[in-house]
Amino acid sequence: MNEIKSYIKDNEKRMLEELFSLIRIPSISAKPEHKEDMIKCANRWKELLLAAGVDKVDIMPTKGHPILYAEKMVDPKAKTVLIYGHYDVMPAEPLELWKSNPFEPEIRDEHIWARGADDDKGQSFIQAKAFEYLNKNGLLQNNIKFILEGEEEIGSPNLEAFCKEHKELLKSDIILVSDTSMLSAELPSLTTGLRGLAYWQLEVTGPNRDLHSGHFGGAVANPINALCGIISKMVDEDGRITIPGFYDKVADIPAEERQMIAQIPFDEEKYKKAIDVAEVAGEKGYSTIERNSCRPSFDVCGIWGGYTGEGSKTVLPSKAYAKVSTRLVAHQDYEEILQLFEDYVQQIAPKSVKVKVIPSHGGQGYLCPIDLPAYQAAERGFEKAFGKKPLPVRRGGSIPIIATFEEVLGVKTILMGFGLESNAIHSPNENFPLDMFRKGIEAVIGFHKEYAKL
Amino acid sequence: MNEIKSYIKDNEKRMLEELFSLIRIPSISAKPEHKEDMIKCANRWKELLLAAGVDKVDIMPTKGHPILYAEKMVDPKAKTVLIYGHYDVMPAEPLELWKSNPFEPEIRDEHIWARGADDDKGQSFIQAKAFEYLNKNGLLQNNIKFILEGEEEIGSPNLEAFCKEHKELLKSDIILVSDTSMLSAELPSLTTGLRGLAYWQLEVTGPNRDLHSGHFGGAVANPINALCGIISKMVDEDGRITIPGFYDKVADIPAEERQMIAQIPFDEEKYKKAIDVAEVAGEKGYSTIERNSCRPSFDVCGIWGGYTGEGSKTVLPSKAYAKVSTRLVAHQDYEEILQLFEDYVQQIAPKSVKVKVIPSHGGQGYLCPIDLPAYQAAERGFEKAFGKKPLPVRRGGSIPIIATFEEVLGVKTILMGFGLESNAIHSPNENFPLDMFRKGIEAVIGFHKEYAKL
Repeated sequence: MNEIKSYIKDNEKRMLEELFSLIRIPSISAKPEHKEDMIKCANRWKELLLAAGVDKVDIMPTKGHPILYAEKMVDPKAKTVLIYGHYDVMPAEPLELWKSNPFEPEIRDEHIWARGADDDKGQSFIQAKAFEYLNKNGLLQNNIKFILEGEEEIGSPNLEAFCKEHKELLKSDIILVSDTSMLSAELPSLTTGLRGLAYWQLEVTGPNRDLHSGHFGGAVANPINALCGIISKMVDEDGRITIPGFYDKVADIPAEERQMIAQIPFDEEKYKKAIDVAEVAGEKGYSTIERNSCRPSFDVCGIWGGYTGEGSKTVLPSKAYAKVSTRLVAHQDYEEILQLFEDYVQQIAPKSVKVKVIPSHGGQGYLCPIDLPAYQAAERGFEKAFGKKPLPVRRGGSIPIIATFEEVLGVKTILMGFGLESNAIHSPNENFPLDMFRKGIEAVIGFHKEYAKL
Repeated sequence: MNEIKSYIKDNEKRMLEELFSLIRIPSISAKPEHKEDMIKCANRWKELLLAAGVDKVDIMPTKGHPILYAEKMVDPKAKTVLIYGHYDVMPAEPLELWKSNPFEPEIRDEHIWARGADDDKGQSFIQAKAFEYLNKNGLLQNNIKFILEGEEEIGSPNLEAFCKEHKELLKSDIILVSDTSMLSAELPSLTTGLRGLAYWQLEVTGPNRDLHSGHFGGAVANPINALCGIISKMVDEDGRITIPGFYDKVADIPAEERQMIAQIPFDEEKYKKAIDVAEVAGEKGYSTIERNSCRPSFDVCGIWGGYTGEGSKTVLPSKAYAKVSTRLVAHQDYEEILQLFEDYVQQIAPKSVKVKVIPSHGGQGYLCPIDLPAYQAAERGFEKAFGKKPLPVRRGGSIPIIATFEEVLGVKTILMGFGLESNAIHSPNENFPLDMFRKGIEAVIGFHKEYAKL
């Protein structure tokens, strides 16, 4: 047994008691009646971080729940690692489905069972304990900053403003986040990409009122027909999005990464069966995993127009609407894409209808290149803890704060998450395996050691 | 002044009193409280037809309001003209918008003002008075049959069954109907075509539940995208419907008819302005009037799927729906078209979604060829009364009973309607110009004389 494993073993009882003291505070950000619990939880974190060895902790107010900032500066010339996490949790309802009290953690079958056991008290605590180990054993070579927010589960409404206001305070070389999951306990992985988003509403107007389809049909453009025509022109037969310029900034997936993606066990038959489709679909030349995480997509999220009630009505309607979205990949800029789409729609729309494109919102994608030295440091940290190299995994969804960090602070994030699908975050019976807790601490320690060498 | 005009002039006071006696009975088929009025009105018609000279009148029961049948047989070997009309009227609401009591007819400005003045008491009465003239003056050379129903304004629910049951009774060589309108008082016209209809609901299913568009977008077919693709493939760049076999039975518009259609005054700028469209649209090579009356059309009447509420939701939905319809022209068979569409949809639908085509309903179109001798007899009748040849006009909508007559009885219908746009049928202040009443009688007399010569 190596020194790290011994340290964790010797201190585990205490560490878990500390974590449980955080879990016992129901810091549910969504519920106003837990406002005091939010403060209590931030204060408990303050005590624990001070005990772990940070030099100072500030509980800083925002328009919502406070943000906790802590730091341990070892050398102004050393690299600085900013650790982000959150101390708020999701509500625990429906309570009757829990096998044990969500706010009274229990150990059963080598798992911690409680709300926040994984998301994100358990995972943030891994970061704190990795720091503690390095600090207490005189091994800390990087400056460490912690930022723990209390509003992640309600969409981080005040974090961007906080980052903009405290750029100097948050200055760092790399950001470390433990708030994602791995492929499985046997398949350690690092999240390397998140997709961006651009979202619009389309409004097509034909005649100024609903017309009798007998008297006008065939001579006046139907806005639903026109809308379908416009939408059908967005993706070609090969599954490629046809908006001019759309792919200009899309980087190819590096060959090495594609090889690693190909190693991710994926049962296409099971995937199809689970959602009951006869065939998968998407961009030619890419696998399903690549399609839903590394490549952009175009989806109509909603459509409506004309008569939609029971039975039939022979109407040539005045209006048709759609909510359409694209998922973007790094380095596409959502504001640019919003504009490209609008231009394209106006270009292809028939002159016989009026088309309004209303940009709704968007967000940037995120990509951590697998040749980034900090990423490779994380890889080696995982390898030490798990005995095998983690696979890089891009996720199809978005975590807006990660893109915000890059935009506002100009710093890349390494997503060292130790969650598992079975951890049931946001659901009853959330849990976290003790094995992941231990390996997580070891992997993060490994990262810090490797990162200091760079 | 010719003999017919003199007869009308001499008898006008009596004729109008007779018509008013029909109008005063509020025979509103839609309202159960007027059930007795329906019987009363049928009986009044019976009296008037007997007075005009028919041999017999039967008021025949149906599941709804009775159908009145009358006949005057002059010669078993002579041709038989079946006259169809209806004695029911639309409700008169909103009553406060009427300038005079809808069921107390008034003559103002040379118009009859009342519910039913045109539709269809006034117009059916024209037929009765033309018959009276011929009969009283010993000029009747055709056998005459009348069929007046009491449920036209509620969709003629019992007429088809009646026709099927009484084929022998209704046996005739031509059917005459006065229940349509002309282009204008100065532009007499005959309705020669009505479009048919086929109507479906389309249901496209992608995954078995709504999916996160981030986690699945790009790898799973979106049913709305797929539905739009299917719909966009229904009409090509030239405005031609692409369903294989769709045009197989569509007859070209005869060159002579196209020339006459071109004479119909039509202000395209005014048309566009009225419905506020920048451009008209439709099948290449045809005028707007041809497009909306002589040629088929494909319209989506309604569409829905996914998230349609306020704001945005990033969803890859499970289902998308559309209500789609085509207007058909003679000699397209709607049942055949229902099938062709279904086959085509299943053929072009991507394998990654499931598509259900649910035929909703349909109806046959109707066409009266302008070289039909009976049509030409009507043309000459109009010419005598109006001093000019009427233009043949096809209508884009449907009058299902006309197609039913052709299907069940195998007899063509001549639509000799004398209504005007300004007659406000179905609306407050329905009216009928006395001039049209007089010319209508003259035109119908002319038809009978000409038809007897054939």
